[in-house]
Amino acid sequence: MAVTPTPAQLDRLQIEVPSWAYGNSGTRFRVFTTPGTPRDPFEKLADAAEVHRHTGLAPTVALHYPWDKVDDWDALRRHAEDLGVALGTVNSNTFQDDDFKFGSLAHPDARIRRKAVDHHLECIEVMHATGSRDLKVWLADGTNYPGQDSIRERQDRLAESLAQIYAEIDEEHRMVLEYKFFEPAFYHTDIPDWGTSYVHCLALGDRAKVVLDTGHHAPGTNIEFIVAQLLRLGKLGAFDFNSRFYADDDLIVGAADPFQLFRIVVELIAGGGYGDPDVQLVLDQCHNIEAKVPGQIRSVLNVQEAIAKALSLDTDALAVARRDCDVLLANEIMMDAYATDVRPLLTEHRAAKGLPENPMRAFLDSGYLDRIAAERVGGTQAGWGA
Amino acid sequence: MAVTPTPAQLDRLQIEVPSWAYGNSGTRFRVFTTPGTPRDPFEKLADAAEVHRHTGLAPTVALHYPWDKVDDWDALRRHAEDLGVALGTVNSNTFQDDDFKFGSLAHPDARIRRKAVDHHLECIEVMHATGSRDLKVWLADGTNYPGQDSIRERQDRLAESLAQIYAEIDEEHRMVLEYKFFEPAFYHTDIPDWGTSYVHCLALGDRAKVVLDTGHHAPGTNIEFIVAQLLRLGKLGAFDFNSRFYADDDLIVGAADPFQLFRIVVELIAGGGYGDPDVQLVLDQCHNIEAKVPGQIRSVLNVQEAIAKALSLDTDALAVARRDCDVLLANEIMMDAYATDVRPLLTEHRAAKGLPENPMRAFLDSGYLDRIAAERVGGTQAGWGA
Amino acid sequence: MAVTPTPAQLDRLQIEVPSWAYGNSGTRFRVFTTPGTPRDPFEKLADAAEVHRHTGLAPTVALHYPWDKVDDWDALRRHAEDLGVALGTVNSNTFQDDDFKFGSLAHPDARIRRKAVDHHLECIEVMHATGSRDLKVWLADGTNYPGQDSIRERQDRLAESLAQIYAEIDEEHRMVLEYKFFEPAFYHTDIPDWGTSYVHCLALGDRAKVVLDTGHHAPGTNIEFIVAQLLRLGKLGAFDFNSRFYADDDLIVGAADPFQLFRIVVELIAGGGYGDPDVQLVLDQCHNIEAKVPGQIRSVLNVQEAIAKALSLDTDALAVARRDCDVLLANEIMMDAYATDVRPLLTEHRAAKGLPENPMRAFLDSGYLDRIAAERVGGTQAGWGA
Amino acid sequence: MAVTPTPAQLDRLQIEVPSWAYGNSGTRFRVFTTPGTPRDPFEKLADAAEVHRHTGLAPTVALHYPWDKVDDWDALRRHAEDLGVALGTVNSNTFQDDDFKFGSLAHPDARIRRKAVDHHLECIEVMHATGSRDLKVWLADGTNYPGQDSIRERQDRLAESLAQIYAEIDEEHRMVLEYKFFEPAFYHTDIPDWGTSYVHCLALGDRAKVVLDTGHHAPGTNIEFIVAQLLRLGKLGAFDFNSRFYADDDLIVGAADPFQLFRIVVELIAGGGYGDPDVQLVLDQCHNIEAKVPGQIRSVLNVQEAIAKALSLDTDALAVARRDCDVLLANEIMMDAYATDVRPLLTEHRAAKGLPENPMRAFLDSGYLDRIAAERVGGTQAGWGA
Repeated sequence: MAVTPTPAQLDRLQIEVPSWAYGNSGTRFRVFTTPGTPRDPFEKLADAAEVHRHTGLAPTVALHYPWDKVDDWDALRRHAEDLGVALGTVNSNTFQDDDFKFGSLAHPDARIRRKAVDHHLECIEVMHATGSRDLKVWLADGTNYPGQDSIRERQDRLAESLAQIYAEIDEEHRMVLEYKFFEPAFYHTDIPDWGTSYVHCLALGDRAKVVLDTGHHAPGTNIEFIVAQLLRLGKLGAFDFNSRFYADDDLIVGAADPFQLFRIVVELIAGGGYGDPDVQLVLDQCHNIEAKVPGQIRSVLNVQEAIAKALSLDTDALAVARRDCDVLLANEIMMDAYATDVRPLLTEHRAAKGLPENPMRAFLDSGYLDRIAAERVGGTQAGWGA
Repeated sequence: MAVTPTPAQLDRLQIEVPSWAYGNSGTRFRVFTTPGTPRDPFEKLADAAEVHRHTGLAPTVALHYPWDKVDDWDALRRHAEDLGVALGTVNSNTFQDDDFKFGSLAHPDARIRRKAVDHHLECIEVMHATGSRDLKVWLADGTNYPGQDSIRERQDRLAESLAQIYAEIDEEHRMVLEYKFFEPAFYHTDIPDWGTSYVHCLALGDRAKVVLDTGHHAPGTNIEFIVAQLLRLGKLGAFDFNSRFYADDDLIVGAADPFQLFRIVVELIAGGGYGDPDVQLVLDQCHNIEAKVPGQIRSVLNVQEAIAKALSLDTDALAVARRDCDVLLANEIMMDAYATDVRPLLTEHRAAKGLPENPMRAFLDSGYLDRIAAERVGGTQAGWGA
Repeated sequence: MAVTPTPAQLDRLQIEVPSWAYGNSGTRFRVFTTPGTPRDPFEKLADAAEVHRHTGLAPTVALHYPWDKVDDWDALRRHAEDLGVALGTVNSNTFQDDDFKFGSLAHPDARIRRKAVDHHLECIEVMHATGSRDLKVWLADGTNYPGQDSIRERQDRLAESLAQIYAEIDEEHRMVLEYKFFEPAFYHTDIPDWGTSYVHCLALGDRAKVVLDTGHHAPGTNIEFIVAQLLRLGKLGAFDFNSRFYADDDLIVGAADPFQLFRIVVELIAGGGYGDPDVQLVLDQCHNIEAKVPGQIRSVLNVQEAIAKALSLDTDALAVARRDCDVLLANEIMMDAYATDVRPLLTEHRAAKGLPENPMRAFLDSGYLDRIAAERVGGTQAGWGA
Repeated sequence: MAVTPTPAQLDRLQIEVPSWAYGNSGTRFRVFTTPGTPRDPFEKLADAAEVHRHTGLAPTVALHYPWDKVDDWDALRRHAEDLGVALGTVNSNTFQDDDFKFGSLAHPDARIRRKAVDHHLECIEVMHATGSRDLKVWLADGTNYPGQDSIRERQDRLAESLAQIYAEIDEEHRMVLEYKFFEPAFYHTDIPDWGTSYVHCLALGDRAKVVLDTGHHAPGTNIEFIVAQLLRLGKLGAFDFNSRFYADDDLIVGAADPFQLFRIVVELIAGGGYGDPDVQLVLDQCHNIEAKVPGQIRSVLNVQEAIAKALSLDTDALAVARRDCDVLLANEIMMDAYATDVRPLLTEHRAAKGLPENPMRAFLDSGYLDRIAAERVGGTQAGWGA
């Protein structure tokens, strides 16, 4: 009973890829390395551009500051343009300076909060140079032990710090505020849930929006509900896509629970968020043991397949079944869309656009991985610390 | 390093007990019965009054409508007064009418939503008769299967239904809105988290407040954070106390994780909610296999002990340790309060007030249980359905 | 890269359906009723036979004792045969007698343990009459509060009780022992995990096997791992299929996480359990709000689709990718099988066997639901208690 | 109703501390450093000896190989003896060599499995030099993506590798085998649960025992049940103590859920494991943001308090209440022990043994932390990688 998505519908998909996905990453136990890993932001962009070249889906690249700090931002911007991509969201970093051991924007010490605010003002300067629209704030702030700091006072300090940053973004900028259930703080995090991000965004103003990272929820959380609710409230600013079984939250999107990803994008479409530039779709993943560029290609394809399935949903028939409280029929209509094998359609769609029919094969056959392994010798491979 | 709570501090504690705790309850597998179980609301109140008589902590009794429906509300009110207690919150019931199989306030069918709204208007009538301040809305609404109904549209319908009810409560009334992670709906619930309850309350107005049921969260949720946040936002209307290990949420408060209960009441006190009549403390429990009146006595004593421990916290020393980012010292100060055996202090406090030093022993020795077992013969024992 | 399953491979699938799925069920909040619900085991069998008639997949029906007690077991057996199905596993019931309030086979009181053992001996008598091979033991035993009973002593008592039952089963019988993470006991259950069921089965003997109920695990548990492990140990006796998002465990199999179901049956096939009569596939579900017979049809179709996808797995290519530690390729091969739309193949397969191409439509069009609603008037609808 | 533990009972407590707790640790986001952090195993031992000097509870130190590799093991052993402690369990490391990116003992490649086995043979050599009894095997093995490798074949390879190691341990040695629910592998781990560790130990022989790490379970798991079960089966070899709220598993033992710790040691005592040298109590923690030596002192004190509370349990009264199925009384007896403030008793006990009454204060006042901060300048601070 599924319907067929139109090319125009499929064309609305754009996914931002993260510069840090191309560097090394790992766990607290070990960061394994790979030949060919980029040594600087220019090489990261080159890798990211391969994803877009083969899929047509990833036109922008998110930056992490100061990991992606360069002397000449214009050069980086031109480099991106030459590669056919653009610079995207600027992500701040409040978790690697020794001063931030006990927090940043919510730290008990006003001097350190000031330093954390100033870091964000630097990020805003970067946004001017890169032409980025969004400043993404993900905080590592929190505590590890009950009593360690005042949960309540940290909220008040956080609100004040955020207000100072928000006051400095331009009219065309947005602040997007992420929440996370746990880690690296293990007893409490200062923005643990969508409700907390939402109330801070509400206090800040219209250009503050919530970021929903699909991996940042308690077990059993119905994430598509949150998508629906935030769209309803007009406060869903961006997605960070990834997946997880229990924790770590950085597996390939759709790898752990593809049906959940489908349900999420069904609500995205139903709520008008799909194709809306104000709801930015971003990958936030790491590839600890798998190849990085192919890992990113797989990720954007997974999102594309989920979107195509969701667009196959027969919403008219569904509305009738829902009106009739026909539980099994409504579920069947949903599952019909999910069960549809959209890969032939997507292959055709790519062909029509002059893209490789099988982006993964095309990339693997291109020799790019061998080339960078041969060329990128010496220097320091980029990772979460650089 | 713990400090000693004053009698005046201890005296601020008041806990509302639920009428339904005295009736039979169980699981979907079986409801076991006990001799002496009340047959009507009058007998429930008699049992509830025993809790207050022995502890001095439980002066009001929450009602559930229509479970506690009587012909003469004045008679019930006078009966309560004669027993030394008062009638409290009125709880609506939107989960036992056949019409509510697929929802009530969020149902797809306007006729059924109207019926559910009307049920709440009846509850408001009861509030006039009982002198209750709070209308508590806990919804069973939700779905069991993906696709079954529109998550988004249900939110909109819910908002509209709630507004119709809110429009009818008096100036001195409040609507308190509960959230619940799961059950009896198993795929999505229409008010699954504090954020959702909060945004509805915000839309409704000042007299709409969030109810935090301690058992209604995803695993790993930091509940004391939510307490702190809702107090900060001025929107914490009431607690439903109970506990759970995994699920069911109706074990005796403090039985599963007494340290969590302690942390919750620490935040309650820190945020100014303790002793504030606008933050109502209520038990919401069931006693499937243990004796009911003693189960309630244990519950109010558990809350009292947690409060006394929390009042023992040396907040001055804690503020210094927090300022210094002395993680271990701050945690130690917290744990010192928790480790304090407050039972001797509470025994003394009760003696000074003419209460039994050991309320549990005093009740068990009173012969009340034997008396009701002998007297309450015939009739239909009250349960969740009556 | 997926391969195409052969008809012979598809034909090995047989799923036992539970008699209790056709009766009313619900939650502790409410059991909703439906017109046409069976009033006795004969009517339950009639409903179950519809599932087999339309799908060809459900040739046997599990019984629950004493819910399905009849005066004349031979008549029931013949009735089943007339309907084209057979009687299957006999499930004992140790959770609805008042004596079992605090446990059955693990109860502190020897008299009650004896009674629980005797109940199982009665079940064995039933097995003689019905020709059933398997005695399924799912225990509700456990405690709600820390300290309530000795965890250790309960294990010893349980072992002794199980040994008494095992001693009485025939050579051609099996005892299959289920584990469950929680509910109806909420602090501890006496057989909470596969390890505990396994050690008891090991102590009992070769004809004692573990039952894996897909809904009976802690959040995040990798269930396919347990399948692989139990097959490796030769101790997987049966599946109880169903699904859940958080808890209740009785949603339609595959409804919550179809990819998990796929992974489970992939391990079932890889470990040699598929088509092995010693690994019995059973549904254990309830249909609280959806129509029951169609709910069962959907369930067996969901299992069939998962099996067909798993049979599509290109295991040769997978072996190579695994040998090469090519993470992305191995995962892609897995996902290729999963992404395959097997419904056309299954439609064709059914046609070749003279079955309805769309069993659900065929059943709904048959008028059976209207007929039973009209015919089954009066009497008491069957439910979990009858 | 609690009873008072005797000095002899308290004296049976001995806790092994981990050498790695004194080095730097952190999360994948950041490892923060502290002045005074040890640069080598000799300095680690010096720190560990402080814990024992002040508490009298930590006479042995677990080693991690090759992190603690030294040229002269005799010198290390004598150094320990001079400091009043002894060398304990040797922990292997199968997660930091590039070859182990896709596993070690369960790796698809026989060469790498051989390398991992050889690493353990080296550990056994170390045990000869250090006089250690236990070889602890915690495996990082597992996969991140469905399909990545064969769950089943990895079990078989693992069994074979373990057998090769087990064959080489001496008669007076033991192999203790740890399980872990997740991390660093995120889809499946090769020893995820006690059942899996148990079946491997069973296959290996009497000197193979299970290690229960308190932080390595799914949410909601009843850990004390596993303690009781493994003691019953005679297969509990060691504890790794720590705590967690959701994940990371390396917070201070008793910090997250002190009541759970109490319940665990109640079962330890009830099952005869307390004071039994065959059930080794070990800390396995890291101190990411708190001071390390004091963090370890707090940890052993937390265990000591939990033990003292558990020893306060009135087991005679409890047996009666359990026999009577008096749920509330049995729970009350349990909670009475837990509510007892055992700190005065422990202060007295320490005084009688010539230990500091308040070990934490005594240590902080000793100037040790300032001294090592001044002395340990230059060199490379020890961490998880060294």
